[in-house]
Amino acid sequence: MKVGILGGGQLGKMLALAGERLGLSFRAIDPAADACIRDAVPETLTRRFDDSAALREFATGLDAITYEWENVPIAAARAVAGACPNFFPTPDVLEIVQDRLFQKQRLSELGIGTAPFSAVDSVDQLRSAVRKLATPCILKTRRLGYDGKGQFVVRNISQAEEAWEAVNRQSSILEGFVPFEAELSIVCVRSSRGEERFYPLTENVHREGILRTSVAPSREPLQARAETIARTALEKLVPGESYVGVMTLELFLVDGRLLVNEIAARVHNTGHWTIDGAVTSQFENHLRAGLGMPLGSSEAKGHSGMVNIIGELPRMDAVRSIPGAHLHLYGKEPKPGRKLGHLTVNRASRAEMLEALKAARNACGEA
Amino acid sequence: MKVGILGGGQLGKMLALAGERLGLSFRAIDPAADACIRDAVPETLTRRFDDSAALREFATGLDAITYEWENVPIAAARAVAGACPNFFPTPDVLEIVQDRLFQKQRLSELGIGTAPFSAVDSVDQLRSAVRKLATPCILKTRRLGYDGKGQFVVRNISQAEEAWEAVNRQSSILEGFVPFEAELSIVCVRSSRGEERFYPLTENVHREGILRTSVAPSREPLQARAETIARTALEKLVPGESYVGVMTLELFLVDGRLLVNEIAARVHNTGHWTIDGAVTSQFENHLRAGLGMPLGSSEAKGHSGMVNIIGELPRMDAVRSIPGAHLHLYGKEPKPGRKLGHLTVNRASRAEMLEALKAARNACGEA
Repeated sequence: MKVGILGGGQLGKMLALAGERLGLSFRAIDPAADACIRDAVPETLTRRFDDSAALREFATGLDAITYEWENVPIAAARAVAGACPNFFPTPDVLEIVQDRLFQKQRLSELGIGTAPFSAVDSVDQLRSAVRKLATPCILKTRRLGYDGKGQFVVRNISQAEEAWEAVNRQSSILEGFVPFEAELSIVCVRSSRGEERFYPLTENVHREGILRTSVAPSREPLQARAETIARTALEKLVPGESYVGVMTLELFLVDGRLLVNEIAARVHNTGHWTIDGAVTSQFENHLRAGLGMPLGSSEAKGHSGMVNIIGELPRMDAVRSIPGAHLHLYGKEPKPGRKLGHLTVNRASRAEMLEALKAARNACGEA
Repeated sequence: MKVGILGGGQLGKMLALAGERLGLSFRAIDPAADACIRDAVPETLTRRFDDSAALREFATGLDAITYEWENVPIAAARAVAGACPNFFPTPDVLEIVQDRLFQKQRLSELGIGTAPFSAVDSVDQLRSAVRKLATPCILKTRRLGYDGKGQFVVRNISQAEEAWEAVNRQSSILEGFVPFEAELSIVCVRSSRGEERFYPLTENVHREGILRTSVAPSREPLQARAETIARTALEKLVPGESYVGVMTLELFLVDGRLLVNEIAARVHNTGHWTIDGAVTSQFENHLRAGLGMPLGSSEAKGHSGMVNIIGELPRMDAVRSIPGAHLHLYGKEPKPGRKLGHLTVNRASRAEMLEALKAARNACGEA
């Protein structure tokens, strides 16, 4: 079977590596000539997502299509879904998740708690929203932006003009600040046969808007509650349609409650530990889900910690001495702020894992 | 860095998948248009190993070259090694291991126990060798042959003519039958920096000359002795030269002694469990070894069992219900006797692993 991947970053590369273990072959499309998926996927088209001839060429003869970049233009998603009926998750999912306002509104309709939010279409609306939500609060463009880009923290109502400029006067969403005790995430997956699997809760640390470390399993007592929220999202995010593929919910733990920060309709950086630390990785289960194969177990093997390798490569001699370390490099040129790879440590006990994670953070300059 | 692989079978594919995790890129060469490495390695040349223009094209611009097929013609190995100095293991290693007689003679010189053997160059020599070693004994061509091909079991001296015909009257080796208690193997690795790592002993079951199952770790009390033998082979197989890369020793356990059945100068089917069951897989360590990177830990994670998927694909619904199961399919067309993939089960305890292995054997029709 041959699967198409829209986007050629590390998520696509890891999808392809997981799928090639299952005997699948792949075709990818990405506008960048140096997309890192190229090392793993023989057929990678260097074409833009608004090039309809390229999209037709891409979709021809594929058994299924998925994406690794959630900001694939909806028109492109619809075009390839027209040419290949097995497109997962569907363009309707993308319509909801690509728009932070639609996404939060839908979660609210489903009774899922989120940070307080307000739609903002003008600087006046922004001022009244800031008054309503109280400072600090965060103005985000409704569409695009990731790793902290396209966001502005409003600390005082006098910054309204500046914030509105920072989002390029685009239709935006203002979100109340949530004084969280912890940032968690749950990676889950639903197959086209209706099977569901939930990975253990992962605890995450971000800095400068970029994920730095993840630890799993975490906060076991909250697992059942997180699964309930995730199940609702899998089964109801799009009215009348059940989700197919991996979905990730970023969560805030606030006063013992779980609030959804954001849904990603794809495999996720906070699930990278599953490659080395779960029976079946998020990447393999995403493909199994879309291809109607039985899902693999999402059970954790021991305890895992993950450190992102950002900007520069780790000191290899330091990596060598870390027990249970698994190195993943994406094959990208080092550049400040760029995710170049990740390092997972996997140990039998949590204490040993935390010890190894400390060494891994040091080796990756994440002191 | 870009690495060349001579041969395009599943061993090469798994090498590439392991290397792509490390950010390496690959080029392969294989005469078969449907070589399964093609799904993982964008640049796979469909050319013969005796095509010198193809070999030059293949070797150009590579940082290192290795092979996944140990019967690469020596002339081809020497040609690419001339074009790319980092060729590992060296052509001198191939000269020894490709010839069963040279290999056994060298092991004897190193004081490493093997089955009794005798060189055979005529039917008369065969008869006298059969008398010396006693029946049953096994006539094998000195070169080529694998998975039981090119071999003839001599049960009675009257079969000498028939045996000699069976090996095409080629220069051969007669090996005494060894009444082994168990077939074991040890995968080990030595890097260009001189680091060495030894994986836990693996216990293997063959049927019809084809590996069916492997279990690791096995026979812990013999580990130190196996490592001593393996260290000698790594450091002394080629006089005056230390080995670089993964080496596998197939061993017989006979009356409490370890005899070497055969050395493979490459990653090995009995080491496939290391992908899911060791901290660093044999594939990753082979590449680390040749590229001068620090080796990863060869420690086992829990207990692993591996079943080869031969001839036909397993029943997926049965695979699903096996705890700790990791499926690997190579992307080859089903055909009787062909290795299509493998299934590894990985569990915390040996008892749980053996239970899962039983289910895995059933799912793979290996009852």
